[in-house]
Amino acid sequence: MPIRYPNGKPYVPSAKNQLASQKQKSYSNRGMTLEEDINQSNTYYLSTGKAVIHKKPTPVQIVNVDYPKRSAAVIKEAYFKQASTTDYNGVYNGRYIDFEAKETRNKTSFPLSNFHEHQITHMQQIHEQNGICFVLLRFSITDQVYYLDASHLFTYWNTMKDGGRKSIKKEDIEKQGILIPYTFQPRIDYIKIIDRMYFN
Amino acid sequence: MPIRYPNGKPYVPSAKNQLASQKQKSYSNRGMTLEEDINQSNTYYLSTGKAVIHKKPTPVQIVNVDYPKRSAAVIKEAYFKQASTTDYNGVYNGRYIDFEAKETRNKTSFPLSNFHEHQITHMQQIHEQNGICFVLLRFSITDQVYYLDASHLFTYWNTMKDGGRKSIKKEDIEKQGILIPYTFQPRIDYIKIIDRMYFN
Repeated sequence: MPIRYPNGKPYVPSAKNQLASQKQKSYSNRGMTLEEDINQSNTYYLSTGKAVIHKKPTPVQIVNVDYPKRSAAVIKEAYFKQASTTDYNGVYNGRYIDFEAKETRNKTSFPLSNFHEHQITHMQQIHEQNGICFVLLRFSITDQVYYLDASHLFTYWNTMKDGGRKSIKKEDIEKQGILIPYTFQPRIDYIKIIDRMYFN
Repeated sequence: MPIRYPNGKPYVPSAKNQLASQKQKSYSNRGMTLEEDINQSNTYYLSTGKAVIHKKPTPVQIVNVDYPKRSAAVIKEAYFKQASTTDYNGVYNGRYIDFEAKETRNKTSFPLSNFHEHQITHMQQIHEQNGICFVLLRFSITDQVYYLDASHLFTYWNTMKDGGRKSIKKEDIEKQGILIPYTFQPRIDYIKIIDRMYFN
């Protein structure tokens, strides 16, 4: 049986990305997903004492569990639940960090359909509590990752809800966001951006 | 089939607690578990814009998923994983909040067996990042909930690892911790304690 994402789409290791990255600079994405790159970065931050950021477990509604004698409980029936928060959170220098990571194969804009209403609501709540809240947006064809403060995302989201554009133009992300160059360790050094924006 | 906790213990609605609480002051625990009380408090904090604190989903290792046509994916085989962090985290006033909640039926001390090594390690990492980190300890017989800063827990944990006591004496919790009286809304107002300790 092929491995699939929770949304049912089959997981296909991306050979195209590998090719694309070989043409680019040395530390670019070697067929790793954005999630893998972020997990590697978080592991690096944790092991070096730089920050403590974890990915939240996938929320699952458990319906039926079997308790065999002398062995571990087996979940026999469960369903994927929609997350009510973002995927990543943690602490850096006492401050609360919260973000979502998304990628697109689109070249000229980032579709807002990558986000759900409840995630935007969550990010607004975090913003109001003075948490550091942002999104990491990856253009997978050109293998570029941008840091975009959540406040910008709220503006585009509200415009869409008022009947406007359903995506963010790449040129706007280039202006309002910050390109994060791939590095060896961590792969995506988003804490460096946070340092520059909040601690200098 | 009876409902059970992930550790296999059957869930028994506690009639004894209900009786105990009726003898006590008005807002004491009416047979609710500590988790239910905290969830209610977090919902209250969220709806009033006071703080954004969520319980993390139970981590589950998914082994087999069925994708029926025209209906939701069904997880057919999965196992409970041990969490590598605490159960609750979030943001208050920009600061990172992280805690674990545990209860005991013991009257005179709180057994350290309620915690796992990896949870202590996680709390130490949070502490080093200047996050606000604590435990909520409930003595279920007397229906008392204490806020205890994680730094105290580390001391008891290290003593135990050096061959010392395997529990924290209740009198020490009374001295070093802070009793949180039950209130109507939120049920357990731990943010009030944080306010007093960090924002005054």
